[in-house]
Amino acid sequence: MIRFDCDYLEGAYPKILKRIVETNYEQTPGYSNDDYTKSAIEKIKNVCKRDDIDVHILVGGTQTNLVVISSILKPYQAVICVDTGHINVHEAGAVESSGHKIISVKSSDGKITAKQINDIAKIYSEDEAPEHMVMPKLVFISLPTECGTNYTKSELNDIYNACKKNNMYLYIDGARLGYGLVAKDTDLKIQDIPNLCDVFYIGGTKQGALFGEAVVIVNEKLKGDFRYYIKQNGGLLAKGRLLGIQFDTLMEDDLYFKISVQAVNFAMKIKEALLEKGYKLLYDSYTNQQFVIMNNNKLNELKKDFSFYKVCNIDEENTAIRICTSWATTEENVNKLIEKL
Amino acid sequence: MIRFDCDYLEGAYPKILKRIVETNYEQTPGYSNDDYTKSAIEKIKNVCKRDDIDVHILVGGTQTNLVVISSILKPYQAVICVDTGHINVHEAGAVESSGHKIISVKSSDGKITAKQINDIAKIYSEDEAPEHMVMPKLVFISLPTECGTNYTKSELNDIYNACKKNNMYLYIDGARLGYGLVAKDTDLKIQDIPNLCDVFYIGGTKQGALFGEAVVIVNEKLKGDFRYYIKQNGGLLAKGRLLGIQFDTLMEDDLYFKISVQAVNFAMKIKEALLEKGYKLLYDSYTNQQFVIMNNNKLNELKKDFSFYKVCNIDEENTAIRICTSWATTEENVNKLIEKL
Amino acid sequence: MIRFDCDYLEGAYPKILKRIVETNYEQTPGYSNDDYTKSAIEKIKNVCKRDDIDVHILVGGTQTNLVVISSILKPYQAVICVDTGHINVHEAGAVESSGHKIISVKSSDGKITAKQINDIAKIYSEDEAPEHMVMPKLVFISLPTECGTNYTKSELNDIYNACKKNNMYLYIDGARLGYGLVAKDTDLKIQDIPNLCDVFYIGGTKQGALFGEAVVIVNEKLKGDFRYYIKQNGGLLAKGRLLGIQFDTLMEDDLYFKISVQAVNFAMKIKEALLEKGYKLLYDSYTNQQFVIMNNNKLNELKKDFSFYKVCNIDEENTAIRICTSWATTEENVNKLIEKL
Amino acid sequence: MIRFDCDYLEGAYPKILKRIVETNYEQTPGYSNDDYTKSAIEKIKNVCKRDDIDVHILVGGTQTNLVVISSILKPYQAVICVDTGHINVHEAGAVESSGHKIISVKSSDGKITAKQINDIAKIYSEDEAPEHMVMPKLVFISLPTECGTNYTKSELNDIYNACKKNNMYLYIDGARLGYGLVAKDTDLKIQDIPNLCDVFYIGGTKQGALFGEAVVIVNEKLKGDFRYYIKQNGGLLAKGRLLGIQFDTLMEDDLYFKISVQAVNFAMKIKEALLEKGYKLLYDSYTNQQFVIMNNNKLNELKKDFSFYKVCNIDEENTAIRICTSWATTEENVNKLIEKL
Repeated sequence: MIRFDCDYLEGAYPKILKRIVETNYEQTPGYSNDDYTKSAIEKIKNVCKRDDIDVHILVGGTQTNLVVISSILKPYQAVICVDTGHINVHEAGAVESSGHKIISVKSSDGKITAKQINDIAKIYSEDEAPEHMVMPKLVFISLPTECGTNYTKSELNDIYNACKKNNMYLYIDGARLGYGLVAKDTDLKIQDIPNLCDVFYIGGTKQGALFGEAVVIVNEKLKGDFRYYIKQNGGLLAKGRLLGIQFDTLMEDDLYFKISVQAVNFAMKIKEALLEKGYKLLYDSYTNQQFVIMNNNKLNELKKDFSFYKVCNIDEENTAIRICTSWATTEENVNKLIEKL
Repeated sequence: MIRFDCDYLEGAYPKILKRIVETNYEQTPGYSNDDYTKSAIEKIKNVCKRDDIDVHILVGGTQTNLVVISSILKPYQAVICVDTGHINVHEAGAVESSGHKIISVKSSDGKITAKQINDIAKIYSEDEAPEHMVMPKLVFISLPTECGTNYTKSELNDIYNACKKNNMYLYIDGARLGYGLVAKDTDLKIQDIPNLCDVFYIGGTKQGALFGEAVVIVNEKLKGDFRYYIKQNGGLLAKGRLLGIQFDTLMEDDLYFKISVQAVNFAMKIKEALLEKGYKLLYDSYTNQQFVIMNNNKLNELKKDFSFYKVCNIDEENTAIRICTSWATTEENVNKLIEKL
Repeated sequence: MIRFDCDYLEGAYPKILKRIVETNYEQTPGYSNDDYTKSAIEKIKNVCKRDDIDVHILVGGTQTNLVVISSILKPYQAVICVDTGHINVHEAGAVESSGHKIISVKSSDGKITAKQINDIAKIYSEDEAPEHMVMPKLVFISLPTECGTNYTKSELNDIYNACKKNNMYLYIDGARLGYGLVAKDTDLKIQDIPNLCDVFYIGGTKQGALFGEAVVIVNEKLKGDFRYYIKQNGGLLAKGRLLGIQFDTLMEDDLYFKISVQAVNFAMKIKEALLEKGYKLLYDSYTNQQFVIMNNNKLNELKKDFSFYKVCNIDEENTAIRICTSWATTEENVNKLIEKL
Repeated sequence: MIRFDCDYLEGAYPKILKRIVETNYEQTPGYSNDDYTKSAIEKIKNVCKRDDIDVHILVGGTQTNLVVISSILKPYQAVICVDTGHINVHEAGAVESSGHKIISVKSSDGKITAKQINDIAKIYSEDEAPEHMVMPKLVFISLPTECGTNYTKSELNDIYNACKKNNMYLYIDGARLGYGLVAKDTDLKIQDIPNLCDVFYIGGTKQGALFGEAVVIVNEKLKGDFRYYIKQNGGLLAKGRLLGIQFDTLMEDDLYFKISVQAVNFAMKIKEALLEKGYKLLYDSYTNQQFVIMNNNKLNELKKDFSFYKVCNIDEENTAIRICTSWATTEENVNKLIEKL
């Protein structure tokens, strides 16, 4: 069985494991107060070309979203996102569990628009009795989106301006940030991100780490006491150096982006094959996730050798699936898949 | 200025005040352990024709919804309601504040359907990893709805069956229960309600009381320790007898429904006048709330003498407003309004 | 049965009921946007001799503490109070339910000291890893305390200075503020209170109102968006004018303090009788609550005619009880009690 | 610098790393649905000699306590623990953040007694108005305690009986379970634990794993839907096999206990040296944590070569510190320390 379900099927990029093994007997202070974490943070600052950012590395994505969002919002404030947003659908209500409403907006491709933000702001601020409603205060987007689509620099700029105009914050979930930034449908670079949002995270779990997500806080107002939030939510890893070592490795010699390029190249190869063979795509993605509509007979045939993530039933005869590549995908397996398509 | 904004503009039905004054110097135990509350509960049981229900009287509607819903749901469970549901829009995120997601469904008339409940149940239960999502466990409806519309006995029966089939509870917000039950577009009677849901409340604030909502818990599983929830949420009134006296009065000699009939009759008179004069209605309501689309010029003219609740802008030239009658509405004021329409 | 259990046994001071009846048919905007509330707020500002305070009137005490405390604290911040503090014992965990730890300190008389505040601040701030603990940010005191004791101006000044020195806020629960301020063991006046804390409330429920507690926010930082917190916690009364009328009446012609003086005078008469007859007091109170240790035989004899609140068992033969007077206590009943003591 | 601060200074027991490296390229399903986790669970069942337990492996201790406790308690229910309990002091208010009060009891050695549980149960259940207070429903203990002390089988039996008698659950935090069970001051064996509590966890982080804590749910009532709680709290690790591999290794060939024996032997050697040299111990511990009171001059001298965890200031001249051994402690370092003591 060759798996294309997701981008967290294997362990970690080998160099990461090598360094974990090499440093195993070193004694380091706990809770991310170690030198590896310090070094990783320095490298992230360099990559982002910003010295004035705060960086905290957490273990997983749901945890990161929960901690970041609950640290930003007051009890009566809400977060806006698209209906397919990860926090809206696949985090078991973690945001609501921390007390906050998610205001979801319709989207056909996983992207929100500046206009949608402005429209919501208008509805909530122009009401005669706004305190009977929640107050939208944060916009949550994923880059790339859950649909594999991307924002351009101009689009992200518009979104961020809409946030600022409406006195809201912008938070970017970068679980697959590398796979997004190397795609050909965006002109965004990693160093643009801190200038176009208030807080974002650089995903590790799906990008070659065993686990780990690096939160980058840009907005001065959101920096204070963040470690309290991490600890209170059970997110402060005792052996924090594991997080430090992983990001220190990923951020060195452009490894994070090299990994991303390879995975996206494989995805593009699969996409081309799909299009050539007449498959219909659910979304037009240029990142490591490809969404394809497949006849159930064909799908069942493929399932003998491959596994995929089922997105939804399209109709009685067709199913939408996701095909994912990652740092660990091999050319051999990609070719085998293409052959059988 | 004659106000038709809402149904809580005046104080209370005079007989209620009379009894509060008469009993002022009596010494009663606090926190609803008094005899007036006991008597009110007996009367509610009689009216409902059910001896096996638990009744608790709370102060206000948002408080009641918050206490009831948070007492039913475990942290990972969610409540389903229509997009216009009061808990979804006008309670400042109280449900989310208690940790629970609201799954909202589209509705053009404020009503949910059994099919919508079944569809949601299917999506959440058939997923391969349901624990990545919330678990829908409760359906919230208002009777009558926020749009002034009603459920028939058959519709409510279908909804309740859908809930039971999908292992969910049904909770009915009866803030205007009287105004709903006396309307001509439903065949439901008060004694049907306990047989067609797990918990509901009989609204007082909008139905002639100074304040107060009587929660009726039908399902045995939901009865335990409810007073803890009331107290923890700050809803246990020290001088609980005030709640007891009010419902003891409203439930006597059919007063609750007499009040409702009068208010609804006035609303029907206004509705007929509106239709006669060619106004377009936003919803087809037979209860005390009438929703009408009005040309802004006409509206501004009327506003010199009357006040209404603005629902939304329809377009540049028209606005949807709500006209509300209540126990306190006078024939004289209704006639003045009709004359000016 | 003559009841001395508590100070919320009867309805309301008659003038309050009179005004509620008189205004019954007036149409007023809901949710405390009415003129009676505006007038009450003005009177509170006058009584406090401060124009720059925000005033919001809520329904009950637990609700008020919940709303105020949760509006002040960030998720990782805690509130300090004495072990007998109402929020620590008798509010069903409402503060914790809103997410915050209560750090309780031992007290033999219900009072906290500036030293205790400084000591806690030291422990929490000097730790090498403070983010592994909560951050104490608020001190909660009651004036008078749950033990009927009082703070002097000098003591309150010390406490407030300790709060400011340690970057904490001070909140005063004034459920029985009138009964405290007229007692002979304090030199505090109502106009001192806003200068010696960040937020406090003027209790109505136990001081002659049907219900209602007036929150006074002094500190500019705590004022914003308070109505969102009230609404989200189900504390925004639809017919808010009821709260306005009650405080407008209580704050007129010094009524609030006249009521307090009478109740405290009766309590002092009982206290003198107790001491004369050799009873031992649990606390030395000069307010409307008297705490006395009584032999169980004597207590059972008295219980034939009177009821009291049981505080605790002292030993096998003695019980501590509370005797409460209020605005509604009559000289006749006080004399009957003294006779039987 | 040789560190004796804590038991999570190094990486992992080498065999664990070896297996992580060996399996790096295997494709496994995420979220603990992999075969390594299944195997680890089987081994835990074998070690515990119980087939009917549910096992879930989480990442860290605070996370585990938060998830377990919040999954057990209803909103108005509280957890009892000693004042030095980890959840009461060092988890940043995580339990309160999930809405629950911690009722703490005094303890001089970190242990709770059956009598203390009975006393609290009595206070809360005999009150006339219990719903004005929280309801104690869970007892939390650590084995070994935060003070390095242990419970005997008889003591634990008494505690569990007190819990059952009072309708409470018992939860054992086993962050250092191995170090406790191999100590000479307890007759408890791992297979006794499931019979003497409702839920417990087998700690990995401090016992040779990179991270990971294995929750064992014994009580049938507490098993349902536990994965929802893990996910909602951000505790469901994407690459769950990392947890599986680690516990699969630790539970093989008694490794978990071999590690524990070695660490405890080193601790005993240090303890003997301390006592020989006349040091006074803060607690009498037979586990891997030793608590010693040290003259500040001596301490400063030692600090040139060694680091310790500071527990508290004893007086102006003395400080209490903790000396910790672990799976990674070397005989050489122990000898160096003893020499300098």
